[in-house]
Parts: sequence; structure tokens; C-alpha cells
Amino acid sequence: ARQRNVLMHERTFFLSGWRKANATASASQSSENRNDYDWVSPEAQVLIAKAYARHKQLADSGKAFPPGLSVDDMEKGLSEPIHFEPQTIMDSIAYNVMRFLRRFTHAFFRKKYDHHAVVLETVAAVPGIVAAMHRHLRSLRRMERDHGWINPLLEEAENERMHLLIWMQVTKPSMLERGLVMVAQGAYVVFYMGLYLISPSASHRLVGYLEEEAHLAYSDYLRALDAKEIENRPAPQIAKEYYHLPDNATIRDVVLHVRADECMHRDFNHMLSNKYKNKDLNSRPAFIGGDFRAEEPETMAREGIMTDPYDETTPKSTESEPATSRSSTKATKSTKAGES
Amino acid sequence: ARQRNVLMHERTFFLSGWRKANATASASQSSENRNDYDWVSPEAQVLIAKAYARHKQLADSGKAFPPGLSVDDMEKGLSEPIHFEPQTIMDSIAYNVMRFLRRFTHAFFRKKYDHHAVVLETVAAVPGIVAAMHRHLRSLRRMERDHGWINPLLEEAENERMHLLIWMQVTKPSMLERGLVMVAQGAYVVFYMGLYLISPSASHRLVGYLEEEAHLAYSDYLRALDAKEIENRPAPQIAKEYYHLPDNATIRDVVLHVRADECMHRDFNHMLSNKYKNKDLNSRPAFIGGDFRAEEPETMAREGIMTDPYDETTPKSTESEPATSRSSTKATKSTKAGES
Ligand SMILES: [Fe+2]
Ligand SMILES: [Fe+2]
Ligand SMILES: [Fe+2]
Ligand SMILES: [Fe+2]
Repeated sequence: ARQRNVLMHERTFFLSGWRKANATASASQSSENRNDYDWVSPEAQVLIAKAYARHKQLADSGKAFPPGLSVDDMEKGLSEPIHFEPQTIMDSIAYNVMRFLRRFTHAFFRKKYDHHAVVLETVAAVPGIVAAMHRHLRSLRRMERDHGWINPLLEEAENERMHLLIWMQVTKPSMLERGLVMVAQGAYVVFYMGLYLISPSASHRLVGYLEEEAHLAYSDYLRALDAKEIENRPAPQIAKEYYHLPDNATIRDVVLHVRADECMHRDFNHMLSNKYKNKDLNSRPAFIGGDFRAEEPETMAREGIMTDPYDETTPKSTESEPATSRSSTKATKSTKAGES
Repeated sequence: ARQRNVLMHERTFFLSGWRKANATASASQSSENRNDYDWVSPEAQVLIAKAYARHKQLADSGKAFPPGLSVDDMEKGLSEPIHFEPQTIMDSIAYNVMRFLRRFTHAFFRKKYDHHAVVLETVAAVPGIVAAMHRHLRSLRRMERDHGWINPLLEEAENERMHLLIWMQVTKPSMLERGLVMVAQGAYVVFYMGLYLISPSASHRLVGYLEEEAHLAYSDYLRALDAKEIENRPAPQIAKEYYHLPDNATIRDVVLHVRADECMHRDFNHMLSNKYKNKDLNSRPAFIGGDFRAEEPETMAREGIMTDPYDETTPKSTESEPATSRSSTKATKSTKAGES
């Protein structure tokens, strides 16, 4: 088993017997998830798993919503910042770049929390689509299945773009501000695409730390709202539709939901950075709370997960099995699960 | 109404009273679709609409499949090539580039239909993701809703990538062939991204003509199979899973399904090229058979379709309406439909 020196951020509570607690905390987590997210406390994992479940239901139309992530969960459970302790020089550089930018942006925006959020989200929506394109082209170039990376990366990009559209409706920035964002964003796209060609691991680590900063920024937004430093206005219509909020929802509700999304992005990107570092590029990414996508046979078929022309370990038995798509998927799936 | 000089390809049947037939052929088509696809015969539109319905069910898990696109439909109805007659100098250049490449590739591959398909599909899976990223970044840059372009473009890219993985399982190309594909593909990615920055309209037109060539190539594949020039082997497992084919399905079945997909891509790209030419970038793309995505309120909310902070014509009444997400969506939708 991979051993990592896990140190917790000073603002998070430290649990003794951490790994043991982590290993037994949630029966719903599969064995592969435990090690992949060992910097996240068991309590936080349970809540972030609920954020994933909520996200799945955002993607599926016509279902009940939200599935169990209460306001209390979002207020208290997800309020503690979770920190991935830098393990390499590259990690440290990424972390310090973000800490520098944090001071810079906080000094620049001060109490303009919504403008801060707009700038954060225009930047945050770039990495997901760049990484998804990278994986897509990799699959084409190598003529190999993708192993289910593309879809969650695209979902992250879309989720961040929705955050941007939400904060846009709250702030309505001036043409000058929009012009500045355009310039900064253009530079960021070029920088991030270049960084991704050089080191995908560093790129995902940087995003992980960006999301840690996003979590802190939204916690600060929340604190300012609760301290009545800024007015808690009604939620914009687009946020009510996206998050299925009641008609009397406020900005505070929106901040809570957006912050829960940032928790997902933060840990998912740190995990992907680890996968790149370990050159583990031909297995499914791990999800906190388990991979609901893996349960959908059509998704698996679409992602080319089940059969790999160059993978001699792919069970051939399913080919002769005169079964329906669903049951043959199940068979392949259990074999796959046994491998990992 | 936009008037276009519609000439049909010499191999397609010509209908007198074309527009009239087109306008009354299918009650299920909304008014916006008729003009957007006026180079496609009413009969073909009905069948391509079924290909879209099949595609939607590929994306939704656990439903019955296929919904009405019979082997006979795919064999006969979709066998006629549909041609978009060049209307500008740019169109002519795109068409002639593709005609040149057709001669070149047909001479090169001769009877190696499956190898031809692999090369075709490695190239075909690039434009969708490039165009989707372009729209995504445009939405971020302008802080405007996307109007539902991103998802169908991503679906096209994923669909083409699945075609590639399918033909990979059939051919298992050598390392040398794979190396050549890598070089050609790298050059194509750089070329297409550059072309898209210069002219998205030319880019989509080029893809439209590429898909016309793909249709011809798969028709030729089919002809060779039926003439017993090449052996009709069992379908690869991945194709059976993706298209929900029975266990005794053959390569011929796969060719039929893939060709039906190319019909969708061909006409969708020609339509997008027209939208760019007409600078009509802030409305939903038209789909043959209507836009099933528009019927899903969650999809609309995710795409930021319903509310636009800079659009003063967006009805404000929905904001005060104490309705559920679903019913307020309907209200907004009908207003939008009235605009176009
Ligand atoms: Fe965000
Ligand atoms: Fe985020
Ligand atoms: Fe294709
Ligand atoms: Fe195609």
C-alpha cells in the first residue's frame, strides 16, 4: 500500500488513529477510494460524497433534489478547510504561487466578494476543459480507451462555468472590469495549456490549491454575510434553477452550494495530480463516495471502459456470452473490480 | 425568410416543389428546423431525426433501444449522399480540399476499408472538442450563456472517439501505422485549432464536407461487404455494447450504425457553418427532428439558457413567480420560442 506523510492543515481538527478511522468510517466507500483521498477526513468524505450525489442529480433531469446534503452539513461540516500538504518541490511551488495570489487578490478586492468570485470562476472554468481535451486527444493518439476521466473533467468545467454565470447575475460587472477579465483569462488559458503539456501533475496540483483558495474565499464571503458586513440579497434566478433552491433563497444559500462544489474540485484535482505523479493513467479516477458513473453500463460502453483491443487481460468470456448489454456489463465490471 | 440556392448532388433524387415538400413533410419538426436544413430532403430528415433519437438513448442509460431506426432505414433511406452545395468561395475551397483528399486516401487505402475508417475517425474526433472548447471559452470570456452549443459538440467528439475505438478493435493496426496516424493527427490538431481561430464558419464547413466523404467511404465499405469483396466478420464487442447490437451482429451492422452517425454530424456541421456565416451565435443550434435537450429543464438551467444577465428581453416575470423549477422553465421556454 502507498504510504504518504499526511499532515493536516493547522485549521483542521487532527484525528489520532487517522488511517484506522479513515479505513472504517464509511461502509459505502470502496477500498480504492480510501487510499486515494487520505488527506481528507472521514467526516468530510461523507459530506463530499453527498455533494457528488447532489451533482449527479443536477445532471439527471426530473429527479428529487437535493439528496441529503442539508444546509447544516454545508454550513458546518464543509466549513473546515482541507489541505493537501506539499510532498514534492513542485507541490511547494504550486502552493506558494497560490498563497501569493491569494494575498494579492484579497488585497485587491477587499470587501467586493462577488467581484472576487467572478474573477475566481472565470479562471476556475479553464482547467477542466483543457484537461478533458488532453485526455480526449490522448485517447485518439494512442487509440486507447479513456478510463472515464473525460466526463468528470467536463462536468467540473461546466460546473465552474455555471458558477461564473451565477456571480455574473449578482454583480453585473462594468465593461472595464470585463475587459480586464478577458486579458487575464487569455493569458491564463495560454499559461495553463503550456503547463499541462509540460506537467499535468503540476497543473492539477495548482488547481487543487486554487480550489483550496476558492474554499477560503467563499468561507470569507459567508463570514461577511453572517457579520452583516454585506447585505444578504435574494439569490439570482439562474442559481435557484441550477441548485433547485426555493424561491426565497438568498445569496448565502448560493455561497453554501458553490463552496460544496469547490470541495469536490479541490480533492478531485489533488487525486488526479497524484495519479499523474504515480504514472497511473490507465485506471478510472477515484471519487469520494464511490463512482456512480461506473454503475451505468451505457456510460461504461460509451467511455470504452469495458473492452480494450490492446489489453490481453480483458476477459474474453463476455464476447461469447449471449446476454443483454446490462448483464454482460455487470460481468465485466466485477472482473474489473477484482483487478484493482 | 433566408433564400438559398439549393442544388442537390447528382446522386441524390431531386424533388420538384422541394421547399413545399420540406415545409409540410413532418409535423414533428418545428418551424426553425425547416429553414436550417433546407439542403436535406424531407425523407432523410425523418430518418436522421431517428438517428438523433437513437443517439439520445445512447446517452440515457437503462432505456429501450433502438427506437425505430430499422436496418432497412439505415440500408436504404440513409444510403443516398446528401450534399451541401458550396455557396461562397470559402465553401468551394473547403469542398475541393476534401475532394482532393478523398482521391488521395482512396488511392492509398484501396480495399483496406477498416484502416481507412481508423484514419478517418482519428481525424473526425478532433473538431468537436476544439469547437466545444471554443464555445466554452467564449462563454467565459464574454460572461454569457452558451445557448446549448457545447453539449452536442462534445457528444459529436465522443461519438467519433467511439467510432475510432470500434475500428481499432477490428483492425489492430501495426505500431508503424499508429505512428503515422499520430504525426498526421498532431498536424491536424494544430491546423484545425488555427483555422478555428481564423474562421469557425470555414472550419464547420470543412467538417461538413469531411462527413460527406465519411458517408461515401462507409457506403463503399458496405458495397464491398455486399459484393463479398471482403469478409463480413462478427462485430467487435465494444460496438455491440455501444449500439446495443445482438450477439450475432456483424461488421455490416456496425457500418450501418456508424454511417447513420455521420449523417447527423454532416448536417449539424453545415448548419453551424451557416450560423457562423450569418453571425447568429446567440441562439440554440437547430437539430433535425427538433431539440430533445430543450425539453429537459435541468439541461437548460445547466447551460444557462433561461436567464441572461445582459439580456434585457429576458422575462422578469419568472423571477417573482413562486413556481417549481419545472413550470418556470416552461414559461421561459415558450417566450424564447416566440422570439425565434
Ligand atoms: Fe467555482
Ligand atoms: Fe472550483
Ligand atoms: Fe465517425
Ligand atoms: Fe462523423
